[in-house]
Amino acid sequence: MDLARLIRSIPDFPVKGILFRDITTLIRDGEAFQEAVDQMVERYIDTEIDVVAAIDARGWIFGAPLAYELGAGFIPIRKPGKLPAETVKASYTLEYGTNTLEMHKDALTPGTKVLLVDDLLATGGSAKAAIELIEKLGGQVVGVAFLIELVDLHGRDLLKGYDVFSMIPFEGA
Amino acid sequence: MDLARLIRSIPDFPVKGILFRDITTLIRDGEAFQEAVDQMVERYIDTEIDVVAAIDARGWIFGAPLAYELGAGFIPIRKPGKLPAETVKASYTLEYGTNTLEMHKDALTPGTKVLLVDDLLATGGSAKAAIELIEKLGGQVVGVAFLIELVDLHGRDLLKGYDVFSMIPFEGA
Repeated sequence: MDLARLIRSIPDFPVKGILFRDITTLIRDGEAFQEAVDQMVERYIDTEIDVVAAIDARGWIFGAPLAYELGAGFIPIRKPGKLPAETVKASYTLEYGTNTLEMHKDALTPGTKVLLVDDLLATGGSAKAAIELIEKLGGQVVGVAFLIELVDLHGRDLLKGYDVFSMIPFEGA
Repeated sequence: MDLARLIRSIPDFPVKGILFRDITTLIRDGEAFQEAVDQMVERYIDTEIDVVAAIDARGWIFGAPLAYELGAGFIPIRKPGKLPAETVKASYTLEYGTNTLEMHKDALTPGTKVLLVDDLLATGGSAKAAIELIEKLGGQVVGVAFLIELVDLHGRDLLKGYDVFSMIPFEGA
């Protein structure tokens, strides 16, 4: 199945100049959604993974089924003010502004093997911040997985040293 | 497994007077997360379901694996301004303020069988608004599933006529 063709491109969202890659047209198709998750499961089925951490909110759409299938726990990484208990924080610059991510301090114990999941690799800023959070707590990032990679933005460069996997490459920003 | 015991209660979050039921302590445990999803899968495995619609953001943590397991599509219902294409909107009153939910206009075609999923049934306002969105587009709500139900808030009354399922009842608001 050509998953890339199921992704809709919407110009100037959320701000002018950004070509937004809309996954809702892929995931509303049960077969396509299953195939996308299955491709991730296949990639990680032989990797030792304790928990899947995924970035609020679209990252959860893939991270949660992946955690379920791998028998791993699920750790939500969230925008500020959403998590109710004590958190660690990390900030980053994204394509259009800056942002902060939080994770519960008790989400991980040192040595926990973590697979980080998000829907889209753009500049890599949010993934880098998420890695910072995981490592602050002593977690070990065993992989970073994305559905889509905007290859021209070279987000992989920011994630050098980590095992980065993406399923659908798009050219152009 | 006693899933209820894995849920942490945090007083005065997000505002004073609310006892927040924190699911992060359940879902970080891979076995517990799997069991929670499995209980939902078991409940709906024999129901004809085309898509699972789930409410931004915690509803996605259960809705996405459930869609995956059932071979159904996944429809995100989101807070305003998050969905890039044309949407339908519905507003509701929640425990602490008011809110609006959106769904893509092309998320559903008339007659689509929809299972609605969220993490928590409180007053039922957000679920009711989500049902409104689904029905506006001609979708048929075949079930409404929650991980947690705050039984004293009587959210079920607002959802009368729908098949409501919840896994973990809590007393008190």
